[in-house]
Amino acid sequence: MKIVLIICDGLGDRPIKDIGFRTPLEASRKPSMDFIAANGICGIMDPIAPGVRPGSAPAHLAIFGYNPYECYRGRGVFEALGLGVDVKPGDLTFRVNLATVDGNLTVIDRRAGRIGSDDSSMLFRLLNEELRIPGVEVYFYPGVEHRGVLVIRGEGLSWMVSDTDPERDGASISMCRPLDESIEARRTAELVNRISIDAHRILSKSEVNRRRASEGKLQANAILVRGASFYEHVSRIDERYGLKACCIAGGPLYKGVARYLGMDVIEVKGATGTYESDFKAKVEACTRSLENYDLVYLHFKATDLAGEDGNYRRKIEMIERIDDALYRIIDRVEDCIITLTADHSTPCSIRTHSADPVPVAIAGPDIRVDDVGRFEERLCAKGGLNRIRGLDLMPILLDVANLTHKYGA
Amino acid sequence: MKIVLIICDGLGDRPIKDIGFRTPLEASRKPSMDFIAANGICGIMDPIAPGVRPGSAPAHLAIFGYNPYECYRGRGVFEALGLGVDVKPGDLTFRVNLATVDGNLTVIDRRAGRIGSDDSSMLFRLLNEELRIPGVEVYFYPGVEHRGVLVIRGEGLSWMVSDTDPERDGASISMCRPLDESIEARRTAELVNRISIDAHRILSKSEVNRRRASEGKLQANAILVRGASFYEHVSRIDERYGLKACCIAGGPLYKGVARYLGMDVIEVKGATGTYESDFKAKVEACTRSLENYDLVYLHFKATDLAGEDGNYRRKIEMIERIDDALYRIIDRVEDCIITLTADHSTPCSIRTHSADPVPVAIAGPDIRVDDVGRFEERLCAKGGLNRIRGLDLMPILLDVANLTHKYGA
Repeated sequence: MKIVLIICDGLGDRPIKDIGFRTPLEASRKPSMDFIAANGICGIMDPIAPGVRPGSAPAHLAIFGYNPYECYRGRGVFEALGLGVDVKPGDLTFRVNLATVDGNLTVIDRRAGRIGSDDSSMLFRLLNEELRIPGVEVYFYPGVEHRGVLVIRGEGLSWMVSDTDPERDGASISMCRPLDESIEARRTAELVNRISIDAHRILSKSEVNRRRASEGKLQANAILVRGASFYEHVSRIDERYGLKACCIAGGPLYKGVARYLGMDVIEVKGATGTYESDFKAKVEACTRSLENYDLVYLHFKATDLAGEDGNYRRKIEMIERIDDALYRIIDRVEDCIITLTADHSTPCSIRTHSADPVPVAIAGPDIRVDDVGRFEERLCAKGGLNRIRGLDLMPILLDVANLTHKYGA
Repeated sequence: MKIVLIICDGLGDRPIKDIGFRTPLEASRKPSMDFIAANGICGIMDPIAPGVRPGSAPAHLAIFGYNPYECYRGRGVFEALGLGVDVKPGDLTFRVNLATVDGNLTVIDRRAGRIGSDDSSMLFRLLNEELRIPGVEVYFYPGVEHRGVLVIRGEGLSWMVSDTDPERDGASISMCRPLDESIEARRTAELVNRISIDAHRILSKSEVNRRRASEGKLQANAILVRGASFYEHVSRIDERYGLKACCIAGGPLYKGVARYLGMDVIEVKGATGTYESDFKAKVEACTRSLENYDLVYLHFKATDLAGEDGNYRRKIEMIERIDDALYRIIDRVEDCIITLTADHSTPCSIRTHSADPVPVAIAGPDIRVDDVGRFEERLCAKGGLNRIRGLDLMPILLDVANLTHKYGA
C-alpha cells in the first residue's frame, strides 16, 4: 500500500490566552485534518526525544527513520543539496554571505548592500577561478542575492569549527576556531581562515567591485561563512525500505533532506516555502505522484513561519488554507496510508522551536481507528498511538502498509 | 507474590468490517479476561519495538526480559529444545526432513511419502551410526513422521548459512551457501553440503529403503535442512530474577523457549497447541503449579492459528473458549499477579504477524487499577500503563509483585 506523509512545519503550539487558551490548531476550522484524525489512529510524537527541541533537519531525519545522532553533522549540507549543489559524502559545506568590510576587516554590511544575483554570481565565479588552496578543492555556488554555498573537498576535514560571520555589522570578521581537540578541526579552521583572507584579496581587486565603487554601491569584498556541515553517508531510503519516494516542498532545506535520503524532488510551480506558496498545486502534485511513487512526502512551511513571527492569527489562517488544499487528497484514505504530523512545535509565544510533542494521525484501510475526532495536540494525546518518537514513525507506517517483514520466526 | 503470565498467541487484531469494524477481541464475550482488565492496570505493548513485526520466538524472549537482538539466533534451537533434544550452548541446529530424490538429486517428495515415524526413526539412527565428519559431532533426532532435528557440535560454526530445502518438489536439493563473509559461515556451509551428500549415500543403501522399494513405497534417501540456528548462552530465568518458573504450553516452540530460559515444562495431557487443545486442563495445571512455582507461564496457541487461517469467527470462538477456561484462575487476583497479554498481533486480514501493539492487563493486590473495564486492543490503549515494550514487562511484574530491589539509594 502507498504512503503519504504530510508534514506541516512547526505546527504544534501552546495554548494562547487571546484565543481562549486554545492552540492555533484547536482554534482553526480544519475539516480535512479532522477527517484524517477521525478515520485514523492518533497520538503525539517526540520528533527526537522528550524535551529535545529539534532543529528542522534532525527532526526530518528522525521522522524518516534516520537517527540524527548518527548522521546529522550540521544543516548546511541540506541547504546546499536543496539548491541543487552537487555535494558528496565527505564534503564539508558552509553557508556563505558576500559582505562589505573596511580595511581593518570590520563588517560594514553583512549582505554587501543586498547585492544582486548577477554581480554575486560573477564574484563567486571569480573565486572559483582564482582561489587555490593546496591539498583541497574549493567550490563556491551562488544562491539568491548575497547568499551562496562553500564546499571544501579533501581528506582530514572536520565540521567542528566556528563561524567567521560575526552575525552583526560593526564587528570584525571572526577567526575560524576549532571546536574540538582534533587535528582535523585545527587544520580545517586554518583552511577556512586562509580561504577568507584569499577571498578578500581576490574580491577587492575584482572588476565587478571596481564598477560597483564607481556606481556608489557597497563593494562585496569579503566572504562570511557559517554552519559548517559534514556530508555523512547514509543508505538511500529506497534501499532501506524498498520504497520509491519523492518530495514535494518549497523550502530548499526540505528538498535537501529529501535529496540526501535519495528521494526524487518534484518541482511544483508556485511552491515557494512562504506564506504565498500554492498549497493546492502541491496537493495536486502529491496526488499525481502517487501514480509513480510508493512514498510521497508533502511539506508545508507556512505554519512554522507564522510561529516564528509570533503571529497566531496568521498561523490559524495558514492551517485553514493548508486544510482547504488537503481536501483534494483525503479520499485516498480508502487505498493509501495518509499520515499527518509536524516536524516540531513552534509556539507563537516563544517564536522558536520547542520540544512540545507534535500531533500525529495515521489513516487508511485496516487501521485501528481510535475515537479521536479532531487533529489537535491535546486530543491526539488521548489517541491509540499514545506517545511515540520520530524514529518509530516509519516502522509503524511500513507495518500498517503491510510493507515490512517479520523479525525472526 | 507469585506471578501468572498468560500469553494468548497472536491475539491482537485489526478492526474487521464484517463484525462492525470490531476486532475479534472486541466482538467476543469474555468475562474472565474483562475481569482481569477491570481489576488491573492496562496498556498496550510493542513486543519488540514500534513497527517491528515480531517472530514468535524473539517476541517471547523479549517478554521474558531477554533482548532478542542479543540472544536470538534462529528458531530451530527452540523447536529442538521443545521436542526434548539435548541442545547445548554453541550447538548449531537445523530442522530436517527425510525426502525422496532421484539420481540427479532432484526432489521427488519433500516428505518421502509422509514416511511413518518407525521407518524415520530407524533411518535417523542409521545416520547417527554411520555418518562421521572430522572435526565436528553430528546428531540426528527423530521428530514426527518425516521431521527431525540435526545438531552439529564443534568449534567455528555459524548460523549464517542457507537452507538446502528447496521448499518445493521438482527442484534440486539446494547447495548450502554462506550468508555472510565469515570463515565460520563458509566452513559451516561446506560441512552441511558434505553431511547432505554422505546422508544420501548412507540412506540410499539402507535396509529400510530396500524394503520400502520392494513395498512400492518412496525411498527416504536424502535429507533437507532448513532454519540454521545457534544456541546462544543466556542466564537462567531463576538466576536472573530469583524466581522458580514453569511453562504450560502445547506447541514445541513455546516449551523450547521455556527450556532455553531454564523453566520447567509441565506436561499436560490434552495440551496440543491446536484448536482442540484442552484449555481447561492447562488452566488447572496452572493453578496447581502455583503451589510449587513463583512464575507460571501459560501459553495458548489457538488464537494465532485462527489469525493465520484468516478466520475471525474461529478466533472469537477460541477467545471465548480460553476465557471460559480462565474462569478457574481469576479469583487468584487476590493473592497473585495475574498478567494477560499476547506475543504479537496476527490480524485475520493479513493472516500473518503484524506490529500492531498487543493489549496487556496486570491484575493483583496493590495495583494502580485503572478505569479500563474490558480486555480489548483499543480500550487498553487508554489504560494506566500507556504504551510499553516487551522488555519492560518482566521488570514491571517483578515490581508490582514486590520482588525487585532499589536501583541505587
